[in-house]
Amino acid sequence: MPVRARNYRDLKNPFTPQKIFSDDQVNALHENALRVLGELGLKVLLPEARKLYKAAGALVDEATEMVRIGPEIVAEALKTAPSEFTLRGGAPEFDVRFHPDALVFFPGAGCPNATDRLRGRRPGSMRDFSELCRIVDGFDVMHTQNAVVEPQDIPAHVRHYATMRHQLLNSQKVPFVFSRGRAQVEDCFEMIRIWRGLSEEAFRADPFTKTIINTNSPRQLDRPMARGIIDHARWGQMTVVTPFCMLGAMAPVTVAGALSLQHAEALAGIVLNQLASPGAPVMYGNFASNVDLKSGAPAFGTPEHVRATIGSGQMARHIGLTWRSAAGCAGNANDAQAAHETEISCWAAVLAGATLIVHSAGWMEGGLTLGYEKLVTDMEMVQIFAELCTSCPADEAALAFEAIKEVQPGGHFFGAGHTLERFHTAFYEPQSWDLSNYGTWSENGAKTADERATQVWQERLAAHADPPFDPVRLELLDAFISRRTAEGGAPPGN
Amino acid sequence: MPVRARNYRDLKNPFTPQKIFSDDQVNALHENALRVLGELGLKVLLPEARKLYKAAGALVDEATEMVRIGPEIVAEALKTAPSEFTLRGGAPEFDVRFHPDALVFFPGAGCPNATDRLRGRRPGSMRDFSELCRIVDGFDVMHTQNAVVEPQDIPAHVRHYATMRHQLLNSQKVPFVFSRGRAQVEDCFEMIRIWRGLSEEAFRADPFTKTIINTNSPRQLDRPMARGIIDHARWGQMTVVTPFCMLGAMAPVTVAGALSLQHAEALAGIVLNQLASPGAPVMYGNFASNVDLKSGAPAFGTPEHVRATIGSGQMARHIGLTWRSAAGCAGNANDAQAAHETEISCWAAVLAGATLIVHSAGWMEGGLTLGYEKLVTDMEMVQIFAELCTSCPADEAALAFEAIKEVQPGGHFFGAGHTLERFHTAFYEPQSWDLSNYGTWSENGAKTADERATQVWQERLAAHADPPFDPVRLELLDAFISRRTAEGGAPPGN
Repeated sequence: MPVRARNYRDLKNPFTPQKIFSDDQVNALHENALRVLGELGLKVLLPEARKLYKAAGALVDEATEMVRIGPEIVAEALKTAPSEFTLRGGAPEFDVRFHPDALVFFPGAGCPNATDRLRGRRPGSMRDFSELCRIVDGFDVMHTQNAVVEPQDIPAHVRHYATMRHQLLNSQKVPFVFSRGRAQVEDCFEMIRIWRGLSEEAFRADPFTKTIINTNSPRQLDRPMARGIIDHARWGQMTVVTPFCMLGAMAPVTVAGALSLQHAEALAGIVLNQLASPGAPVMYGNFASNVDLKSGAPAFGTPEHVRATIGSGQMARHIGLTWRSAAGCAGNANDAQAAHETEISCWAAVLAGATLIVHSAGWMEGGLTLGYEKLVTDMEMVQIFAELCTSCPADEAALAFEAIKEVQPGGHFFGAGHTLERFHTAFYEPQSWDLSNYGTWSENGAKTADERATQVWQERLAAHADPPFDPVRLELLDAFISRRTAEGGAPPGN
Repeated sequence: MPVRARNYRDLKNPFTPQKIFSDDQVNALHENALRVLGELGLKVLLPEARKLYKAAGALVDEATEMVRIGPEIVAEALKTAPSEFTLRGGAPEFDVRFHPDALVFFPGAGCPNATDRLRGRRPGSMRDFSELCRIVDGFDVMHTQNAVVEPQDIPAHVRHYATMRHQLLNSQKVPFVFSRGRAQVEDCFEMIRIWRGLSEEAFRADPFTKTIINTNSPRQLDRPMARGIIDHARWGQMTVVTPFCMLGAMAPVTVAGALSLQHAEALAGIVLNQLASPGAPVMYGNFASNVDLKSGAPAFGTPEHVRATIGSGQMARHIGLTWRSAAGCAGNANDAQAAHETEISCWAAVLAGATLIVHSAGWMEGGLTLGYEKLVTDMEMVQIFAELCTSCPADEAALAFEAIKEVQPGGHFFGAGHTLERFHTAFYEPQSWDLSNYGTWSENGAKTADERATQVWQERLAAHADPPFDPVRLELLDAFISRRTAEGGAPPGN
């Protein structure tokens, strides 16, 4: 039986980017952000970062650690920040191209907990990290690895060895590095160089990994984050600067106000990155939604979330950079609410023209938990977006006049030659959706999507095979980890 | 406490209509459809309809009942078909304006079964119809009443009296009429005239109700449907011509082929409508998705469904008419699958620039069942779309420079004046979503969205009050129903 051809890599966003603000309003937001940077400034906790800003002409008050950045410094950074670059995977087919039309998906990440229907909700462990690495690896539409869960059973000073080792051994996709201090970051860079067989020079020439920098909104950049920006820039690795601007909490309650703050903070991070190394691969980042009126907890998939996302796309295009958005979900179960939240927010990101959509599968409880079953059910959504990136034929064969002629009025096309030639490959086939009728579905146990998804991830996990590797490199990698562990590892720091 | 202002009526679609076909391809589809109409023709089962087509110059073969319609006949009909009109409700605030930028939502309809968590899945009854009428009435974002479920406990020859009576008594929103033969249609028209106090002339001057016409794809128009087109046109009531073109089943397996057939059939219906009464309010309709590869059952929310929907918008705009699309869901439970299907298909309809989105809430099992809980969980989605139809301020107050200045680096905006002034009305508040954290959610019984939705519809139903009415009109209405029932009612026919 013929198999449907899929190409879920190197996607181009098929939709026209949407707008919530007029061009004048976008200018006003940009100017407002520049005013925040120039008049109010940011508190920057890392002395080395303040030094870089100061050398570029920013007004730095060492006593208060406040840095005021003039518009000309921002303009200069935006001249050197690249609008496209390519992340290098373990083989060319795992490279990920970032450019203004690209559509890149990362799985949910950074979750302290994991959950699945067999084992329940628990603090994330190395077993979870490793399983999820392998499950994610099997989905082409997940374009890189990510720090899916926090393996809390591994001590913090050696945790990065374990997580990087798994990302490298289980997958050829680009791994993720947390910016938890220079020592951890440089350890991870060294592990990648060993595993990929790269000289320091070759590693510096291309991004082989990426980090996400969250500012401490409002208007603060802490030490490990500032250090991460500088170190990734100097090593030529990819940095995403993502302020964390929840409306009414860490940012103004209005979308325009929150995006002004987000824009100011993102620009500050991008400036630092370009000051550390002009031309370093850097992306604009967005994480802005409202909080629940009752509890103050983050909400996702709301009208304000959609607007903040679409507005962020306008701001990123205004400065000409690729940019990161995210899907989101506050739901505690893999149910209708969780699906609506993730769908709405992911559509917002796609329609906002996001280059990169993080947390696109598996992320729930506002990021506190990575759900195995939610990873599977969300994957249908992501794959459907990927399917929509291909073109829709309208040539003579597709117009099907002869088939329409062949089938009599009131008849059907099931047996038409035109149908039979295409039937096995014509349609996307969801894995976790049950399209049988109510009777059949009931006879099969009336399973919900959440229940069916368990089998899917179990099968995916069982089917996974680690990519082949050079045993010498594994020896070198493990020797490096042993030596560094013996030296005391690298506690999170700055 | 201030209450958030809502206006969920008279919505304008905030998004740019999307494209899957180039303008040349749209032309090619249109030409292909004209070729289907002119060279192959449609089987039209109603003699009166064939007569109308023939009088306009179509080639009619009475032996085979085939009607071939030339492009000049189509062009003539498109000249008189209106691109905007207003449905009249029981009061001006229940009027529904149809125009190319409008966004109108109808609830799920036509379902033979109903389901809810308390009473389980069962054949639709008059109790279900009546309850759902009242629940739908309470949601402003549901712009009309609809034939939500089929009350199978009422004999078919008097069923339309009961359903129309409930729609009129329970709500001031525009009711729906099934085209199940002239006698039923004219009974319903008479009931509306009695209840609304309209002369025949006043009734003819404006549409006070609407019907959906499904062609028997491929290329067939049956007797009750053709009769419904003619009768609604002659009485000036709204008609939507919606071919039922499932890819690979009743239509070619390709999107371009299925939309060619859909376009041909929709044009044939619109032509008949305009021949019966030039200028009658008529809409283009779309219902096209793929079928499941395994079972032949309809699928919804798939890539092919999204494409067929967006392509339909291009075809409707090509001929300059308002048009009807739909959300869809094949799922048998109100779970993550069902939510994804409905979200994806509803986004497709919104992005396709649909004027009217039918089945936007509660519709499941491919239309076999109306779910009370699904009605509630889908309603969040529809209300969020409605919220997105309002503008997003970016004036000085919204830009919030002073608030950003007031809050110290690393602080929060919870207590800022700017936040407090707006907090209670700033955000949309979902009714069926639980945004509490995992601990609180677990303590409250770890209820899924489906479980929580039960309480919402129960409260909505309990809170419903029928609109005030003139007791004389109720007497007249009931006298009419008694007389017609005594006369034998009106069995479905043509």
